[in-house]
Amino acid sequence: MKLTHIEHLGIAVKSLDEAIPFWEQKLGMKCYSIEEVKEQKVRTAFFKIGQSKIELLESTEPDGPIGKYVEKNGGGIHHLAFAVEGLQENLDELASKGAQLIDKTPRKGAEGLNIAFVHPKTTGGILMELCEDPNKK
Amino acid sequence: MKLTHIEHLGIAVKSLDEAIPFWEQKLGMKCYSIEEVKEQKVRTAFFKIGQSKIELLESTEPDGPIGKYVEKNGGGIHHLAFAVEGLQENLDELASKGAQLIDKTPRKGAEGLNIAFVHPKTTGGILMELCEDPNKK
Repeated sequence: MKLTHIEHLGIAVKSLDEAIPFWEQKLGMKCYSIEEVKEQKVRTAFFKIGQSKIELLESTEPDGPIGKYVEKNGGGIHHLAFAVEGLQENLDELASKGAQLIDKTPRKGAEGLNIAFVHPKTTGGILMELCEDPNKK
Repeated sequence: MKLTHIEHLGIAVKSLDEAIPFWEQKLGMKCYSIEEVKEQKVRTAFFKIGQSKIELLESTEPDGPIGKYVEKNGGGIHHLAFAVEGLQENLDELASKGAQLIDKTPRKGAEGLNIAFVHPKTTGGILMELCEDPNKK
């Protein structure tokens, strides 16, 4: 496994319009991008912090994964994403070690990254994402 | 506000002995320190990942904050900690902007850091910690 750093933290919010001012005005970060990921039924807002990003996630439909999460938990840290070198090789290695994967092969995520999720059953309750920047391959 | 990077992610686990092998053997990280923080009723295990750390937290007593969290949630991401420059000034600034603080002045945390917590009511449901390394002041 070659995890290099925390790529981002995915944070579920009820509303980007309500959440962004906290991160900008109180914490002094700058939202540099808002993007819709239709496949995931979310709108995302990104902030850079050191090597990592904060990704705020607003559901565009109540039955989406973030919509359900917010309804149950009222917002909070939804997933933890690590940057990896060699995503497919890392997924194969995890599977060979008995980890339960949501995605056995990479798919496209926000910001053009190749991504895959690891099941919380395997990680001790954390929804974990692995990300690879195809431009850095 | 001067947040520089994600200092660590605090992850609540039932048992360090059960959790550490996942992070070491499946994710390929190395636990470099185990420390007891009596004030918080926890034992902590640290892993370095890029600029950041993963801090696994095991309760030493059922009535501690992590013990209660694990009983309710079964483990998962407990708090998000940012490194800041000038902790007291940042706390004063947050308070002046109407943020609700758990600690209005810094106290000692794991690894000798000065720390303070911001209330989840203010942050959209996230228990947020601000950390300053007194040796880098």
